[in-house]
Amino acid sequence: LKPIIWDNNQNKLTVLDQSLLPFEKVFVELRTPEEVADAIRLMKVRGAPAIGITASYGMVLSVLKASSIDDALKLLHNAKQVMDKARPTAVNLSWATSHMLNRAKQYVESGEAKNVKELVELLKKDANKVFDDEMEAEIQMGLYGLEKLNSGDTVLTQCNAGGLATGTGLGTALAPVKIAHLLGMNVSVIAPETRPWLQGSRLTVYELMEEGIPVTLITDTAVGLVMFKKMVSSVMVGADRILSDGHVYNKIGTFKEAVIAHEMGIPFYVLAPVSTFDLKSSVNDVKIEERDPNEVRTVRGVPIAPENVKVFNPVFDVTPPKYITAIITEKGVIYPPFDKNVRKIVER
Amino acid sequence: LKPIIWDNNQNKLTVLDQSLLPFEKVFVELRTPEEVADAIRLMKVRGAPAIGITASYGMVLSVLKASSIDDALKLLHNAKQVMDKARPTAVNLSWATSHMLNRAKQYVESGEAKNVKELVELLKKDANKVFDDEMEAEIQMGLYGLEKLNSGDTVLTQCNAGGLATGTGLGTALAPVKIAHLLGMNVSVIAPETRPWLQGSRLTVYELMEEGIPVTLITDTAVGLVMFKKMVSSVMVGADRILSDGHVYNKIGTFKEAVIAHEMGIPFYVLAPVSTFDLKSSVNDVKIEERDPNEVRTVRGVPIAPENVKVFNPVFDVTPPKYITAIITEKGVIYPPFDKNVRKIVER
Repeated sequence: LKPIIWDNNQNKLTVLDQSLLPFEKVFVELRTPEEVADAIRLMKVRGAPAIGITASYGMVLSVLKASSIDDALKLLHNAKQVMDKARPTAVNLSWATSHMLNRAKQYVESGEAKNVKELVELLKKDANKVFDDEMEAEIQMGLYGLEKLNSGDTVLTQCNAGGLATGTGLGTALAPVKIAHLLGMNVSVIAPETRPWLQGSRLTVYELMEEGIPVTLITDTAVGLVMFKKMVSSVMVGADRILSDGHVYNKIGTFKEAVIAHEMGIPFYVLAPVSTFDLKSSVNDVKIEERDPNEVRTVRGVPIAPENVKVFNPVFDVTPPKYITAIITEKGVIYPPFDKNVRKIVER
Repeated sequence: LKPIIWDNNQNKLTVLDQSLLPFEKVFVELRTPEEVADAIRLMKVRGAPAIGITASYGMVLSVLKASSIDDALKLLHNAKQVMDKARPTAVNLSWATSHMLNRAKQYVESGEAKNVKELVELLKKDANKVFDDEMEAEIQMGLYGLEKLNSGDTVLTQCNAGGLATGTGLGTALAPVKIAHLLGMNVSVIAPETRPWLQGSRLTVYELMEEGIPVTLITDTAVGLVMFKKMVSSVMVGADRILSDGHVYNKIGTFKEAVIAHEMGIPFYVLAPVSTFDLKSSVNDVKIEERDPNEVRTVRGVPIAPENVKVFNPVFDVTPPKYITAIITEKGVIYPPFDKNVRKIVER
């Protein structure tokens, strides 16, 4: 499972079009920051870490044809602007573009990059490092998460926080299950379909079936019953943004799982790299992205509601710290009280 | 909105095929108990009270061609058996068929029905009374529920517990909103789409739009966020079965709304006629119906998941009494403690 492929010799970025899965397996080449932004907006690339990695390569793509170092910096500024707008909620996106832009400025100021060619080579190394760091972080999160799993466990997840979402093939929320499976433990997953975009039925289920991990698909409405019936040992989800007090922004539907898990006494874990943390914003600052009403009025182009019905289509929700058992990062596991402990781990 | 039409002169039962709404408005004639059972199984007729009414007429249909009184009773026994199997969870179904069978036995034993023709006429009156009682009960529930509404309120519902579900055009959970709207109060509804069968997006939204009541469609995943954001004044849902201790069986997804409403301090009301109560069973006795996995793997025939994925497709869930603010019946409003108060009202 390799959803993001960077050809380091030909400077070529190819991504698996996730909007067509599981029905078609199509790879598309992205040549410019504009094409990267479009791919993110159209959810060909999705999942916070995968967006971050792709945007890092998008920054590299922006300077390939620069006429001078000054021109390169201008193009990088512009590329950041273009790509940041594609998905406002995902913090990894602006983190990645800022990181790449800052690195470029340092290279120019310090004289490490004396021409465009040198700058391109240095930025390529940085983008590759974003990918490698993500992979390393996921392995680390997977190992921390593994401590929360026992053989025979069934994990409820939400959306797709697997290797498709992160671009590495491993994943965040699914990393513990995948590592457990590799180690021969008997673990399985319950995947809610995750309307409107059906990341659960289209991606999580596909990804786990490809790897031979037992998975059961349910509707989003059945999330309560599977916990009520004790069919779930723990909940493991990813995150798009985590605040310093432990508020977690993730795919719409996460909040309900957290509240029900809390009521049923089932542990609720959030798995995310420290790049997901936004230590500056408070819960009132973060705007929740709303998408096209037609995502709710239709499924795969087929109408399922009166065409003129009014729709509210938020794609993220926010889970207060009260409902979270622990946040698992690559730097360690954060337990409540989050307002004290988040900074201790993230700023470590 | 007239989803069940009984022609009392021609003994003809016609129902609106709800499986085709909101795209096509097709009425189908049901001629035999077998056709009624099929219509219930295929969800052309759905919603607990509508199923009860239709099954009552199905009992009438079963004796139209009886050769003798004895034959009629045999046919009624058989019709009950055939129809009861169509939806195991809906208590209204077996309630209606038992009621009609018992009435028939009484008419025969008492000599009121001396021949098939007399029996048919008496049973027609009984079936019409099932319909009229339902309508009267809904008006009563609507008036009790109206006391829980203020102008400006937004009610979150689940599935379709409107006039399509009950067969009368009014409904249970939607009755208070409809009466409030008639009285000129400013009320609106948020309808979750209710996968897998999409009663929310297909039926509730259609029904309310037809009547000019403001309605907003959301995905099932957004149920938590709308309550978190205080966009909801109260939750009003129907029920398929209510136990004597207040456990409520209703459309899959109801439980999650109840838990979240409880956590957010939003009142959660169940509206159902007393025929919905099952005072004999306990929560361990009731089997929750599971339906075809392809309902989850596809939407309107379009695949949305790998075709061989394992699926768990329960269509009801159970909400413990702890999460219920009140149960609104036509005989009065039942408040906690339900294990004491249910019988007081239901057996009144």
